[in-house]
Amino acid sequence: MKTTVPVPVRWADLDAYGHVNNAAVFTLLEEARIALFWRGREDAATQLATFIAHQEIEYLLPISYPDEPLPISVWISKIGGASAEVCYEVPNAAGDVAARARTTIVTVNPATGTPRRITDEERARWAEYLADPVQFRRH
Amino acid sequence: MKTTVPVPVRWADLDAYGHVNNAAVFTLLEEARIALFWRGREDAATQLATFIAHQEIEYLLPISYPDEPLPISVWISKIGGASAEVCYEVPNAAGDVAARARTTIVTVNPATGTPRRITDEERARWAEYLADPVQFRRH
Amino acid sequence: MKTTVPVPVRWADLDAYGHVNNAAVFTLLEEARIALFWRGREDAATQLATFIAHQEIEYLLPISYPDEPLPISVWISKIGGASAEVCYEVPNAAGDVAARARTTIVTVNPATGTPRRITDEERARWAEYLADPVQFRRH
Amino acid sequence: MKTTVPVPVRWADLDAYGHVNNAAVFTLLEEARIALFWRGREDAATQLATFIAHQEIEYLLPISYPDEPLPISVWISKIGGASAEVCYEVPNAAGDVAARARTTIVTVNPATGTPRRITDEERARWAEYLADPVQFRRH
Repeated sequence: MKTTVPVPVRWADLDAYGHVNNAAVFTLLEEARIALFWRGREDAATQLATFIAHQEIEYLLPISYPDEPLPISVWISKIGGASAEVCYEVPNAAGDVAARARTTIVTVNPATGTPRRITDEERARWAEYLADPVQFRRH
Repeated sequence: MKTTVPVPVRWADLDAYGHVNNAAVFTLLEEARIALFWRGREDAATQLATFIAHQEIEYLLPISYPDEPLPISVWISKIGGASAEVCYEVPNAAGDVAARARTTIVTVNPATGTPRRITDEERARWAEYLADPVQFRRH
Repeated sequence: MKTTVPVPVRWADLDAYGHVNNAAVFTLLEEARIALFWRGREDAATQLATFIAHQEIEYLLPISYPDEPLPISVWISKIGGASAEVCYEVPNAAGDVAARARTTIVTVNPATGTPRRITDEERARWAEYLADPVQFRRH
Repeated sequence: MKTTVPVPVRWADLDAYGHVNNAAVFTLLEEARIALFWRGREDAATQLATFIAHQEIEYLLPISYPDEPLPISVWISKIGGASAEVCYEVPNAAGDVAARARTTIVTVNPATGTPRRITDEERARWAEYLADPVQFRRH
Protein backbone atom coordinates (compact mmCIF):
# COMPACT_ATOMS: atom_id res chain seq x y z
CA MET A 1 0.00 0.00 0.00
CA LYS A 2 1.40 3.39 -0.94
CA THR A 3 1.45 6.04 1.72
CA THR A 4 1.78 9.80 1.37
CA VAL A 5 4.19 11.92 3.36
CA PRO A 6 3.85 15.71 3.26
CA VAL A 7 7.42 17.06 2.89
CA PRO A 8 7.95 20.84 3.14
CA VAL A 9 10.18 22.35 0.47
CA ARG A 10 12.55 24.97 1.81
CA TRP A 11 13.45 28.21 0.09
CA ALA A 12 17.09 27.07 0.20
CA ASP A 13 16.20 23.99 -1.88
CA LEU A 14 15.67 26.20 -4.92
CA ASP A 15 18.47 26.86 -7.35
CA ALA A 16 19.12 29.89 -9.52
CA TYR A 17 16.49 28.69 -12.01
CA GLY A 18 13.86 28.93 -9.26
CA HIS A 19 13.37 25.14 -9.21
CA VAL A 20 14.19 22.58 -6.55
CA ASN A 21 17.81 21.58 -7.14
CA ASN A 22 18.35 18.03 -8.43
CA ALA A 23 20.30 17.02 -5.31
CA ALA A 24 17.76 18.63 -2.98
CA VAL A 25 15.13 16.26 -4.37
CA PHE A 26 17.12 13.42 -2.77
CA THR A 27 16.87 15.23 0.55
CA LEU A 28 13.10 15.39 0.13
CA LEU A 29 13.09 11.64 -0.63
CA GLU A 30 15.19 11.07 2.48
CA GLU A 31 12.61 12.85 4.61
CA ALA A 32 9.79 10.75 3.08
CA ARG A 33 11.80 7.57 3.68
CA ILE A 34 12.51 8.54 7.29
CA ALA A 35 8.81 9.13 7.88
CA LEU A 36 8.06 5.65 6.53
CA PHE A 37 10.69 3.75 8.49
CA TRP A 38 11.54 5.77 11.57
CA ARG A 39 9.12 8.50 12.60
CA GLY A 40 6.77 7.72 15.41
CA ARG A 41 8.55 4.49 16.30
CA GLU A 42 10.16 4.32 19.73
CA ASP A 43 13.85 3.48 19.55
CA ALA A 44 13.57 3.15 15.78
CA ALA A 45 16.68 5.21 15.15
CA THR A 46 18.86 3.03 17.31
CA GLN A 47 17.41 -0.28 16.20
CA LEU A 48 17.14 0.25 12.46
CA ALA A 49 20.44 1.27 10.89
CA THR A 50 20.64 1.27 7.10
CA PHE A 51 23.12 1.96 4.33
CA ILE A 52 21.98 3.25 0.94
CA ALA A 53 23.29 1.00 -1.81
CA HIS A 54 21.65 2.39 -4.92
CA GLN A 55 19.40 5.20 -6.07
CA GLU A 56 17.71 5.98 -9.35
CA ILE A 57 15.60 8.99 -10.24
CA GLU A 58 13.78 10.30 -13.25
CA TYR A 59 12.94 13.99 -13.35
CA LEU A 60 9.84 14.69 -15.45
CA LEU A 61 9.00 18.27 -14.59
CA PRO A 62 10.72 21.08 -12.73
CA ILE A 63 9.47 21.64 -9.18
CA SER A 64 8.72 25.27 -8.40
CA TYR A 65 8.40 26.64 -4.88
CA PRO A 66 5.13 25.26 -3.51
CA ASP A 67 2.84 26.96 -1.00
CA GLU A 68 2.26 23.68 0.77
CA PRO A 69 4.39 20.63 1.64
CA LEU A 70 4.71 18.26 -1.31
CA PRO A 71 2.64 15.09 -0.80
CA ILE A 72 5.31 12.52 -1.70
CA SER A 73 4.06 8.99 -2.35
CA VAL A 74 6.34 6.39 -0.85
CA TRP A 75 6.11 2.61 -0.78
CA ILE A 76 8.21 -0.56 -0.69
CA SER A 77 8.57 -2.56 -3.88
CA LYS A 78 10.74 -5.39 -2.63
CA ILE A 79 11.87 -6.88 0.67
CA GLY A 80 14.94 -9.08 0.26
CA GLY A 81 17.12 -10.90 2.76
CA ALA A 82 19.10 -7.89 3.93
CA SER A 83 17.84 -5.15 1.64
CA ALA A 84 14.66 -3.42 0.57
CA GLU A 85 13.63 -1.22 -2.33
CA VAL A 86 11.78 1.99 -1.59
CA CYS A 87 9.88 3.80 -4.37
CA TYR A 88 8.65 7.37 -4.56
CA GLU A 89 6.57 9.68 -6.69
CA VAL A 90 7.09 13.39 -6.15
CA PRO A 91 4.39 15.76 -7.39
CA ASN A 92 4.95 19.39 -8.24
CA ALA A 93 2.75 22.15 -6.83
CA ALA A 94 0.18 21.53 -9.58
CA GLY A 95 -0.15 17.88 -8.59
CA ASP A 96 1.56 16.44 -11.68
CA VAL A 97 4.24 13.78 -11.25
CA ALA A 98 7.53 15.68 -11.28
CA ALA A 99 9.90 12.85 -10.31
CA ARG A 100 9.93 9.10 -9.81
CA ALA A 101 12.66 7.42 -7.81
CA ARG A 102 13.83 4.23 -6.16
CA THR A 103 16.27 3.66 -3.33
CA THR A 104 17.83 0.37 -2.29
CA ILE A 105 18.61 0.27 1.40
CA VAL A 106 20.65 -2.39 3.16
CA THR A 107 19.95 -3.17 6.79
CA VAL A 108 23.14 -3.10 8.81
CA ASN A 109 24.26 -3.96 12.28
CA PRO A 110 24.77 -0.51 13.86
CA ALA A 111 27.70 -1.73 15.93
CA THR A 112 29.68 -3.21 13.04
CA GLY A 113 28.23 -1.53 9.94
CA THR A 114 27.93 -4.91 8.22
CA PRO A 115 24.70 -6.14 6.57
CA ARG A 116 22.31 -8.13 8.73
CA ARG A 117 19.11 -9.98 7.89
CA ILE A 118 15.78 -8.22 8.02
CA THR A 119 13.89 -9.53 11.04
CA ASP A 120 10.49 -11.20 10.82
CA GLU A 121 9.02 -8.34 12.78
CA GLU A 122 10.41 -5.76 10.31
CA ARG A 123 9.28 -7.88 7.38
CA ALA A 124 5.74 -8.04 8.70
CA ARG A 125 5.62 -4.30 9.38
CA TRP A 126 7.08 -3.30 6.03
CA ALA A 127 4.83 -5.70 4.09
CA GLU A 128 2.03 -3.25 4.77
CA TYR A 129 3.69 -0.83 2.35
CA LEU A 130 4.35 -3.27 -0.50
CA ALA A 131 3.27 -2.21 -3.99
CA ASP A 132 4.51 -2.60 -7.57
CA PRO A 133 7.86 -1.01 -8.35
CA VAL A 134 7.95 2.45 -9.89
CA GLN A 135 8.29 2.35 -13.67
CA PHE A 136 10.92 4.55 -15.28
CA ARG A 137 10.51 5.76 -18.85
CA ARG A 138 14.24 5.61 -19.50
CA HIS A 139 16.46 3.17 -17.73
CA MET B 1 38.79 10.32 -22.29
CA LYS B 2 38.06 10.49 -18.59
CA THR B 3 39.05 13.63 -16.78
CA THR B 4 39.51 14.22 -13.06
CA VAL B 5 37.99 17.12 -11.16
CA PRO B 6 39.12 17.80 -7.59
CA VAL B 7 35.95 18.54 -5.62
CA PRO B 8 36.30 19.73 -2.02
CA VAL B 9 34.06 18.03 0.51
CA ARG B 10 32.58 20.40 3.05
CA TRP B 11 32.12 19.71 6.72
CA ALA B 12 28.40 20.36 6.23
CA ASP B 13 28.23 17.49 3.72
CA LEU B 14 28.70 15.00 6.52
CA ASP B 15 25.74 13.46 8.28
CA ALA B 16 25.42 12.23 11.84
CA TYR B 17 27.25 9.02 10.91
CA GLY B 18 30.31 11.10 9.96
CA HIS B 19 29.94 10.18 6.29
CA VAL B 20 29.05 12.31 3.28
CA ASN B 21 25.24 12.31 3.10
CA ASN B 22 23.73 10.41 0.16
CA ALA B 23 22.16 13.56 -1.30
CA ALA B 24 25.35 15.58 -0.81
CA VAL B 25 27.13 13.16 -3.14
CA PHE B 26 24.87 14.46 -5.93
CA THR B 27 26.05 17.97 -5.12
CA LEU B 28 29.65 16.77 -5.50
CA LEU B 29 28.71 15.22 -8.86
CA GLU B 30 27.08 18.49 -9.87
CA GLU B 31 30.32 20.36 -9.18
CA ALA B 32 32.30 17.82 -11.23
CA ARG B 33 29.79 18.10 -14.09
CA ILE B 34 29.91 21.90 -14.00
CA ALA B 35 33.69 21.79 -14.21
CA LEU B 36 33.44 19.57 -17.28
CA PHE B 37 30.83 21.57 -19.19
CA TRP B 38 30.97 25.13 -17.94
CA ARG B 39 34.05 26.20 -16.01
CA GLY B 40 36.61 28.18 -17.89
CA ARG B 41 34.34 28.68 -20.88
CA GLU B 42 33.33 32.23 -21.66
CA ASP B 43 29.56 32.68 -21.85
CA ALA B 44 29.12 28.96 -21.20
CA ALA B 45 26.47 29.53 -18.57
CA THR B 46 24.28 31.58 -20.85
CA GLN B 47 24.77 29.44 -23.93
CA LEU B 48 24.52 25.97 -22.43
CA ALA B 49 21.32 25.42 -20.51
CA THR B 50 20.48 21.86 -19.48
CA PHE B 51 17.78 19.94 -17.67
CA ILE B 52 18.59 16.76 -15.74
CA ALA B 53 16.36 13.92 -16.92
CA HIS B 54 17.72 10.92 -15.05
CA GLN B 55 20.31 9.97 -12.46
CA GLU B 56 21.54 6.66 -11.13
CA ILE B 57 24.06 6.06 -8.39
CA GLU B 58 25.60 3.10 -6.66
CA TYR B 59 27.21 3.63 -3.26
CA LEU B 60 29.98 1.13 -2.59
CA LEU B 61 31.71 2.56 0.46
CA PRO B 62 30.98 5.35 2.91
CA ILE B 63 32.92 8.56 2.29
CA SER B 64 34.56 9.95 5.39
CA TYR B 65 35.78 13.53 5.71
CA PRO B 66 38.85 13.81 3.50
CA ASP B 67 41.84 16.08 4.04
CA GLU B 68 41.99 16.88 0.34
CA PRO B 69 39.42 17.50 -2.41
CA LEU B 70 38.10 14.23 -3.82
CA PRO B 71 39.46 13.54 -7.32
CA ILE B 72 36.18 12.69 -9.06
CA SER B 73 36.51 11.01 -12.45
CA VAL B 74 34.00 12.34 -14.94
CA TRP B 75 33.40 11.50 -18.59
CA ILE B 76 30.71 11.34 -21.26
CA SER B 77 29.37 7.92 -22.26
CA LYS B 78 26.88 8.96 -24.92
CA ILE B 79 26.04 12.01 -27.00
CA GLY B 80 22.53 11.80 -28.45
CA GLY B 81 20.46 14.25 -30.47
CA ALA B 82 19.43 16.48 -27.58
CA SER B 83 20.84 14.62 -24.60
CA ALA B 84 24.10 13.31 -23.21
CA GLU B 85 25.07 10.82 -20.53
CA VAL B 86 27.68 11.83 -17.98
CA CYS B 87 29.43 9.19 -15.86
CA TYR B 88 31.37 9.54 -12.63
CA GLU B 89 33.51 7.60 -10.22
CA VAL B 90 33.92 9.06 -6.74
CA PRO B 91 36.81 7.82 -4.63
CA ASN B 92 36.93 7.94 -0.87
CA ALA B 93 39.89 9.42 0.99
CA ALA B 94 41.78 6.12 0.69
CA GLY B 95 41.46 6.15 -3.09
CA ASP B 96 38.96 3.28 -3.34
CA VAL B 97 35.87 3.69 -5.51
CA ALA B 98 33.12 4.79 -3.14
CA ALA B 99 30.39 5.61 -5.67
CA ARG B 100 29.62 5.25 -9.36
CA ALA B 101 26.97 7.35 -11.03
CA ARG B 102 25.43 8.45 -14.30
CA THR B 103 23.44 11.55 -15.17
CA THR B 104 21.39 12.12 -18.33
CA ILE B 105 21.25 15.78 -19.26
CA VAL B 106 19.00 17.30 -21.90
CA THR B 107 20.10 20.42 -23.72
CA VAL B 108 17.40 23.05 -23.64
CA ASN B 109 16.72 26.41 -25.19
CA PRO B 110 17.26 28.81 -22.25
CA ALA B 111 14.53 31.13 -23.48
CA THR B 112 11.82 28.51 -23.78
CA GLY B 113 13.05 25.61 -21.61
CA THR B 114 12.29 23.14 -24.41
CA PRO B 115 14.86 20.59 -25.66
CA ARG B 116 17.11 21.68 -28.51
CA ARG B 117 19.61 19.77 -30.63
CA ILE B 118 23.22 19.56 -29.52
CA THR B 119 25.26 21.72 -31.90
CA ASP B 120 28.15 20.40 -34.02
CA GLU B 121 30.50 22.59 -32.05
CA GLU B 122 29.31 21.12 -28.72
CA ARG B 123 29.44 17.60 -30.14
CA ALA B 124 33.03 18.04 -31.26
CA ARG B 125 34.10 19.51 -27.92
CA TRP B 126 32.32 16.88 -25.81
CA ALA B 127 33.63 14.00 -27.96
CA GLU B 128 36.97 14.58 -26.28
CA TYR B 129 35.51 13.18 -23.06
CA LEU B 130 33.86 10.06 -24.54
CA ALA B 131 34.54 6.74 -22.80
CA ASP B 132 32.64 3.54 -22.00
CA PRO B 133 29.64 3.88 -19.71
CA VAL B 134 30.05 3.23 -16.02
CA GLN B 135 29.07 -0.31 -15.04
CA PHE B 136 26.76 -0.77 -12.07
CA ARG B 137 26.79 -3.96 -10.03
CA ARG B 138 23.07 -3.80 -9.37
CA HIS B 139 20.64 -2.19 -11.76
CA MET C 1 3.05 39.40 19.88
CA LYS C 2 5.33 36.46 19.42
CA THR C 3 4.15 33.66 17.19
CA THR C 4 5.38 30.08 16.96
CA VAL C 5 6.24 28.35 13.71
CA PRO C 6 6.82 24.57 13.72
CA VAL C 7 9.92 24.00 11.56
CA PRO C 8 10.89 20.39 10.75
CA VAL C 9 14.56 19.56 11.17
CA ARG C 10 15.93 17.36 8.41
CA TRP C 11 18.35 14.50 8.86
CA ALA C 12 20.68 16.33 6.47
CA ASP C 13 20.80 19.32 8.85
CA LEU C 14 22.84 17.27 11.31
CA ASP C 15 26.61 17.37 11.23
CA ALA C 16 29.10 14.69 12.20
CA TYR C 17 28.59 15.55 15.88
CA GLY C 18 24.93 14.58 15.55
CA HIS C 19 23.80 18.18 16.11
CA VAL C 20 22.13 20.65 13.78
CA ASN C 21 24.96 22.38 11.92
CA ASN C 22 25.50 26.05 12.79
CA ALA C 23 24.66 27.21 9.25
CA ALA C 24 21.60 24.96 9.04
CA VAL C 25 20.14 26.84 12.00
CA PHE C 26 19.97 29.90 9.71
CA THR C 27 17.97 27.83 7.23
CA LEU C 28 15.53 26.96 10.03
CA LEU C 29 15.28 30.67 10.87
CA GLU C 30 14.67 31.43 7.20
CA GLU C 31 11.73 29.02 7.17
CA ALA C 32 10.29 30.60 10.32
CA ARG C 33 10.69 34.06 8.79
CA ILE C 34 9.04 32.99 5.54
CA ALA C 35 6.09 31.62 7.48
CA LEU C 36 5.72 34.97 9.26
CA PHE C 37 5.99 37.22 6.20
CA TRP C 38 4.97 35.17 3.18
CA ARG C 39 3.10 31.94 3.77
CA GLY C 40 -0.62 32.06 3.30
CA ARG C 41 -0.56 35.47 1.70
CA GLU C 42 -1.67 35.71 -1.91
CA ASP C 43 0.98 37.32 -4.12
CA ALA C 44 3.15 37.89 -1.08
CA ALA C 45 6.25 36.51 -2.81
CA THR C 46 5.98 38.90 -5.72
CA GLN C 47 5.01 41.94 -3.68
CA LEU C 48 7.38 41.64 -0.75
CA ALA C 49 11.02 41.42 -1.81
CA THR C 50 13.63 41.75 0.89
CA PHE C 51 17.39 41.76 1.30
CA ILE C 52 19.03 40.54 4.49
CA ALA C 53 21.36 43.20 5.88
CA HIS C 54 22.50 41.74 9.17
CA GLN C 55 22.17 38.63 11.32
CA GLU C 56 23.26 37.78 14.81
CA ILE C 57 22.90 34.49 16.63
CA GLU C 58 23.81 33.06 20.00
CA TYR C 59 23.99 29.29 20.35
CA LEU C 60 23.25 28.17 23.90
CA LEU C 61 22.81 24.42 23.54
CA PRO C 62 23.38 21.87 20.79
CA ILE C 63 20.25 20.83 18.91
CA SER C 64 19.90 17.08 18.54
CA TYR C 65 17.63 15.41 16.01
CA PRO C 66 14.08 15.99 17.25
CA ASP C 67 11.09 13.70 16.71
CA GLU C 68 8.85 16.66 16.03
CA PRO C 69 9.23 19.99 14.20
CA LEU C 70 10.94 22.59 16.39
CA PRO C 71 8.48 25.24 17.60
CA ILE C 72 10.51 28.35 16.72
CA SER C 73 9.31 31.60 18.29
CA VAL C 74 9.48 34.50 15.88
CA TRP C 75 8.51 38.15 16.26
CA ILE C 76 9.35 41.64 15.05
CA SER C 77 11.30 43.91 17.36
CA LYS C 78 11.50 47.03 15.20
CA ILE C 79 9.84 48.44 12.11
CA GLY C 80 11.93 51.22 10.57
CA GLY C 81 11.49 53.24 7.39
CA ALA C 82 12.76 50.60 4.98
CA SER C 83 13.90 47.87 7.33
CA ALA C 84 12.65 45.61 10.07
CA GLU C 85 14.23 43.49 12.77
CA VAL C 86 13.04 39.92 13.19
CA CYS C 87 13.85 37.99 16.37
CA TYR C 88 13.79 34.26 17.06
CA GLU C 89 14.13 31.76 19.84
CA VAL C 90 14.90 28.18 18.81
CA PRO C 91 14.21 25.42 21.35
CA ASN C 92 15.89 22.04 21.35
CA ALA C 93 13.91 18.82 21.53
CA ALA C 94 13.73 19.11 25.32
CA GLY C 95 12.11 22.55 25.09
CA ASP C 96 15.10 24.52 26.37
CA VAL C 97 16.25 27.63 24.49
CA ALA C 98 19.05 26.42 22.21
CA ALA C 99 19.56 29.59 20.13
CA ARG C 100 18.51 33.21 20.03
CA ALA C 101 18.85 35.24 16.85
CA ARG C 102 17.98 38.49 15.11
CA THR C 103 17.79 39.31 11.41
CA THR C 104 17.58 42.77 9.88
CA ILE C 105 15.70 42.75 6.59
CA VAL C 106 15.50 45.63 4.13
CA THR C 107 12.47 45.98 1.92
CA VAL C 108 13.48 46.41 -1.69
CA ASN C 109 11.84 47.19 -5.00
CA PRO C 110 11.86 43.80 -6.77
CA ALA C 111 12.39 45.43 -10.16
CA THR C 112 15.42 47.49 -9.17
CA GLY C 113 16.72 45.79 -6.01
CA THR C 114 16.96 49.16 -4.27
CA PRO C 115 15.47 49.84 -0.82
CA ARG C 116 11.91 51.15 -0.70
CA ARG C 117 9.75 52.40 2.16
CA ILE C 118 7.61 49.98 4.11
CA THR C 119 3.99 50.67 3.20
CA ASP C 120 1.30 51.63 5.72
CA GLU C 121 -0.48 48.37 4.99
CA GLU C 122 2.68 46.34 5.74
CA ARG C 123 3.34 48.41 8.86
CA ALA C 124 -0.13 47.75 10.19
CA ARG C 125 0.07 44.03 9.49
CA TRP C 126 3.56 43.59 10.95
CA ALA C 127 2.71 45.63 14.07
CA GLU C 128 0.71 42.62 15.22
CA TYR C 129 4.01 40.76 15.76
CA LEU C 130 5.87 43.52 17.66
CA ALA C 131 7.59 42.51 20.90
CA ASP C 132 10.76 43.41 22.80
CA PRO C 133 14.04 42.60 21.06
CA VAL C 134 15.79 39.35 21.88
CA GLN C 135 18.52 39.79 24.51
CA PHE C 136 21.93 38.28 23.84
CA ARG C 137 24.19 37.24 26.67
CA ARG C 138 27.32 38.20 24.75
CA HIS C 139 27.34 40.89 22.13
CA MET D 1 47.96 38.69 10.34
CA LYS D 2 45.01 38.11 8.04
CA THR D 3 45.17 35.11 5.79
CA THR D 4 43.17 34.35 2.67
CA VAL D 5 41.40 31.06 2.02
CA PRO D 6 40.02 30.36 -1.47
CA VAL D 7 36.56 28.86 -0.92
CA PRO D 8 34.68 27.48 -3.95
CA VAL D 9 31.05 28.53 -4.23
CA ARG D 10 28.77 25.71 -5.35
CA TRP D 11 25.88 26.03 -7.76
CA ALA D 12 23.64 24.67 -4.99
CA ASP D 13 24.61 27.64 -2.77
CA LEU D 14 22.61 29.97 -5.01
CA ASP D 15 18.99 30.73 -4.25
CA ALA D 16 16.17 31.59 -6.63
CA TYR D 17 17.48 35.16 -6.89
CA GLY D 18 20.73 33.83 -8.34
CA HIS D 19 22.71 34.92 -5.26
CA VAL D 20 24.45 32.91 -2.58
CA ASN D 21 21.81 32.16 0.04
CA ASN D 22 22.25 33.95 3.38
CA ALA D 23 22.71 30.65 5.28
CA ALA D 24 25.11 29.27 2.66
CA VAL D 25 27.45 32.17 3.42
CA PHE D 26 27.89 30.66 6.90
CA THR D 27 28.92 27.40 5.26
CA LEU D 28 31.55 29.31 3.27
CA LEU D 29 32.76 30.90 6.53
CA GLU D 30 32.89 27.44 8.11
CA GLU D 31 35.16 26.21 5.33
CA ALA D 32 37.44 29.24 5.75
CA ARG D 33 37.55 28.67 9.51
CA ILE D 34 38.34 24.98 9.08
CA ALA D 35 41.20 25.86 6.75
CA LEU D 36 42.60 28.21 9.39
CA PHE D 37 42.33 25.87 12.38
CA TRP D 38 42.33 22.31 11.09
CA ARG D 39 43.53 21.73 7.53
CA GLY D 40 46.99 20.45 7.12
CA ARG D 41 47.40 19.70 10.79
CA GLU D 42 47.86 16.08 11.78
CA ASP D 43 45.30 14.91 14.33
CA ALA D 44 43.87 18.42 14.45
CA ALA D 45 40.30 17.18 14.13
CA THR D 46 40.59 14.91 17.11
CA GLN D 47 42.54 17.29 19.29
CA LEU D 48 40.75 20.55 18.61
CA ALA D 49 37.02 20.31 19.30
CA THR D 50 35.06 23.55 19.37
CA PHE D 51 31.53 24.76 19.92
CA ILE D 52 30.23 27.89 18.20
CA ALA D 53 28.83 30.30 20.77
CA HIS D 54 27.98 33.37 18.70
CA GLN D 55 27.98 34.63 15.14
CA GLU D 56 27.34 38.00 13.59
CA ILE D 57 27.26 38.90 9.92
CA GLU D 58 26.66 41.97 7.83
CA TYR D 59 25.70 41.49 4.20
CA LEU D 60 26.76 44.45 2.06
CA LEU D 61 26.32 43.17 -1.48
CA PRO D 62 24.72 40.12 -3.07
CA ILE D 63 27.19 37.42 -4.10
CA SER D 64 26.62 36.14 -7.63
CA TYR D 65 28.00 32.85 -8.93
CA PRO D 66 31.75 33.38 -9.31
CA ASP D 67 34.03 31.69 -11.85
CA GLU D 68 36.71 31.23 -9.22
CA PRO D 69 36.77 30.33 -5.52
CA LEU D 70 36.08 33.37 -3.35
CA PRO D 71 39.23 34.57 -1.57
CA ILE D 72 37.83 34.88 1.95
CA SER D 73 39.95 36.84 4.42
CA VAL D 74 40.04 35.23 7.83
CA TRP D 75 41.83 36.18 11.01
CA ILE D 76 41.59 36.00 14.80
CA SER D 77 40.61 39.15 16.70
CA LYS D 78 40.74 37.84 20.24
CA ILE D 79 42.09 34.86 22.13
CA GLY D 80 40.45 34.45 25.53
CA GLY D 81 40.75 31.79 28.19
CA ALA D 82 38.55 29.19 26.55
CA SER D 83 37.26 31.07 23.53
CA ALA D 84 38.45 32.91 20.45
CA GLU D 85 36.92 35.34 17.99
CA VAL D 86 37.34 34.68 14.29
CA CYS D 87 36.70 37.46 11.76
CA TYR D 88 36.05 37.25 8.03
CA GLU D 89 35.65 39.40 4.97
CA VAL D 90 33.93 37.80 1.98
CA PRO D 91 34.42 39.43 -1.41
CA ASN D 92 32.05 39.05 -4.33
CA ALA D 93 33.29 38.05 -7.78
CA ALA D 94 34.18 41.67 -8.54
CA GLY D 95 36.43 41.85 -5.49
CA ASP D 96 34.21 44.19 -3.44
CA VAL D 97 33.48 43.35 0.19
CA ALA D 98 30.14 41.53 0.14
CA ALA D 99 29.99 40.39 3.75
CA ARG D 100 31.77 40.86 7.06
CA ALA D 101 31.35 38.39 9.89
CA ARG D 102 32.60 37.27 13.27
CA THR D 103 32.35 33.91 15.01
CA THR D 104 33.04 33.17 18.66
CA ILE D 105 34.28 29.65 19.19
CA VAL D 106 34.67 27.91 22.51
CA THR D 107 37.29 25.20 22.92
CA VAL D 108 35.78 22.09 24.43
CA ASN D 109 36.95 18.77 25.75
CA PRO D 110 35.90 16.33 23.02
CA ALA D 111 35.15 13.59 25.54
CA THR D 112 32.88 15.68 27.75
CA GLY D 113 31.79 18.57 25.55
CA THR D 114 32.59 21.02 28.32
CA PRO D 115 34.78 24.14 27.80
CA ARG D 116 38.50 23.74 28.38
CA ARG D 117 41.35 26.26 28.45
CA ILE D 118 43.20 27.10 25.28
CA THR D 119 46.67 25.57 25.56
CA ASP D 120 49.89 27.58 25.35
CA GLU D 121 50.76 25.77 22.15
CA GLU D 122 47.42 26.72 20.54
CA ARG D 123 47.74 30.29 21.81
CA ALA D 124 51.17 30.64 20.25
CA ARG D 125 50.07 29.20 16.94
CA TRP D 126 46.88 31.25 16.73
CA ALA D 127 48.64 34.47 17.70
CA GLU D 128 50.11 34.46 14.21
CA TYR D 129 46.63 35.30 12.86
CA LEU D 130 45.79 38.12 15.28
CA ALA D 131 44.48 41.37 13.78
CA ASP D 132 41.95 44.06 14.68
CA PRO D 133 38.31 42.96 14.91
CA VAL D 134 36.06 43.43 11.91
CA GLN D 135 34.00 46.60 12.11
CA PHE D 136 30.27 46.38 11.43
CA ARG D 137 28.32 49.34 10.12
CA ARG D 138 25.20 48.40 12.06
CA HIS D 139 25.28 46.52 15.29
